[in-house]
Amino acid sequence: MNMHFNPSQSVRYVGVQNMVRLVASRGVESMLEGMADYIEEDFRRWPLFDKTPRVASHSADGVIELMPTSDGTLYGFKYVNGHPKNMREGLQTVTAFGMLADVATGYPQFISEMTITTALRTAATSAVAARHLARPDSRVMGMIGLGAQSEFQALAFRVICGIEELRVYDIDPEATAKFLGNMEGLGLRITPCKSAADAVMGVDIITTVTADKQNATVLSDNMVGAGVHINAIGGDCPGKTELQADILKRASVFVEYPEQTRIEGEIQQMEADFPVTELWRVITGELPGRLDAQQITLFDSVGFATEDLSALRYIRDVVAETPFYDEIDLIAAPADPRDLFGLIRSAKLSADEGI
Amino acid sequence: MNMHFNPSQSVRYVGVQNMVRLVASRGVESMLEGMADYIEEDFRRWPLFDKTPRVASHSADGVIELMPTSDGTLYGFKYVNGHPKNMREGLQTVTAFGMLADVATGYPQFISEMTITTALRTAATSAVAARHLARPDSRVMGMIGLGAQSEFQALAFRVICGIEELRVYDIDPEATAKFLGNMEGLGLRITPCKSAADAVMGVDIITTVTADKQNATVLSDNMVGAGVHINAIGGDCPGKTELQADILKRASVFVEYPEQTRIEGEIQQMEADFPVTELWRVITGELPGRLDAQQITLFDSVGFATEDLSALRYIRDVVAETPFYDEIDLIAAPADPRDLFGLIRSAKLSADEGI
Repeated sequence: MNMHFNPSQSVRYVGVQNMVRLVASRGVESMLEGMADYIEEDFRRWPLFDKTPRVASHSADGVIELMPTSDGTLYGFKYVNGHPKNMREGLQTVTAFGMLADVATGYPQFISEMTITTALRTAATSAVAARHLARPDSRVMGMIGLGAQSEFQALAFRVICGIEELRVYDIDPEATAKFLGNMEGLGLRITPCKSAADAVMGVDIITTVTADKQNATVLSDNMVGAGVHINAIGGDCPGKTELQADILKRASVFVEYPEQTRIEGEIQQMEADFPVTELWRVITGELPGRLDAQQITLFDSVGFATEDLSALRYIRDVVAETPFYDEIDLIAAPADPRDLFGLIRSAKLSADEGI
Repeated sequence: MNMHFNPSQSVRYVGVQNMVRLVASRGVESMLEGMADYIEEDFRRWPLFDKTPRVASHSADGVIELMPTSDGTLYGFKYVNGHPKNMREGLQTVTAFGMLADVATGYPQFISEMTITTALRTAATSAVAARHLARPDSRVMGMIGLGAQSEFQALAFRVICGIEELRVYDIDPEATAKFLGNMEGLGLRITPCKSAADAVMGVDIITTVTADKQNATVLSDNMVGAGVHINAIGGDCPGKTELQADILKRASVFVEYPEQTRIEGEIQQMEADFPVTELWRVITGELPGRLDAQQITLFDSVGFATEDLSALRYIRDVVAETPFYDEIDLIAAPADPRDLFGLIRSAKLSADEGI
């Protein structure tokens, strides 16, 4: 059926295939650096944002979440799920997509896959936090959990924080093998370890990034030495934590959005008034980050909607210089905006007349 | 750049062009009837749904909303804006899109435009409510507001409730002309009227469907006679109402989800404990609808997420028998689910090797 009118307005779309091409052509490290700048820029203008805890729909096997935010000009949201059991069925634990819209008109502007993008933005956010909280001379990172996000974390800390050496551990030797294979030739010295305790021994930064949806003790108090920065990624929903509570008592804890982190982060184990510092206040210089080389700093990261908006802004901007996007006809565009029905009538007439 | 692997899994997508073709080929009335059945079916299993008021982001010019729900098996949400000023710029007041996902895996399953779909589902829901609340012998409807939703409302009441005659009014003569042109030959007797009062004189059902974002008095108390059913569509966000409060005091008010309607509907004008009846309880037969031929019944409709899930289910099911859909690559599908990074590495190798 042909139509002699165009009933729609298109929205730029970056699917998985184009995202893979975009990241492969620019390079993961370049993408991480660029995205980190956008994330840091948005942390600096934090008070501007319309902030709300994510809207979660929990089920027996996982969670589906919507994460909206707006800076007053640009609105964005992400759809994301978390289903740890998916992996056993050969599926992704986390899949995501997101969009940007124009606040002035409410019109969608840009839609993108966000599974790969979320891995990039989570790693970039971790590195932004560490840039402000870890000891500046940090060169060795211990990483526990070598799943889908691990390579992105490793490269973000290399390019943004100057990490040169990794000590890594996963309970699953296959995950370790996958990680070592992927990191080959990328310039980091990597030591696979026999235990989590071994992996964090003597390191400057500890990253915990495991996926089990339960209160686990991936890191216990006796494993954490003075002066360490802890990048805690995996504790990110109610009932899912990675750190022994004693660590939280010894550390200075930094968070994205306290209202959300108290529900979802490591600090869900603590009282409601457990003291935390908002990361954006450190980034703007309003509050100090690390006070001395002995302090234990902890970024209790759960992922916040503003980071997704930053990531989408970045992808939107860099993809525009490439061929790696499509256009999809998501917006109805009748000649007279009140004449939605006319679109159908015109199409029907065209079909009846065989036009 | 070619790739010798498929990094993605596709999701069925119905854009505006395919939606226009689908509705034109099946016919608007057939779509309204089919959708009404799905909507009624979901009202019957109302207690199953995970219900939450929509998540709204208000700005000076309008609102952007996310409306999620789930029946435990299927998750759905709609993105929708409301920007009354858009019309003056030649843009739609309301644009929308939505998706369905599998609760068990969190994977997106179906994505669709919902601008046209929302007009259909709003009209179908109105007619479902009227089927249970209006006098069964209702044949004449008065309609105030002849914007983008008006033709869909008119046809829904014709095919679902047996309305044969319309009395219509809009402050803008151009909107009236558009409406009359679109309805030509569709089998309803239509009388354009000089005022709202004239349009509702002696009718069985009154539909108010204006778009201004303000507390307006589209319908005043003296215009409403005994036995009328009022289908109030336009009062659907804080500060936006159409009816004089006195009408609410005389009428029996039926709502979708009280927690949302008390904020957004006509009853935002009343006290927090103003008595209302949930429509689903009438549809299941748990509570009575209309008690006698003299009662004024009022459906204070704001639109609820379950109706969008019903509409998406219906579109998903009927489009499957047609060629009117595309597939988009929204889900990353690495061979090893933990190996997201491997997708990039493979693409890069392919590019470097010129494969």
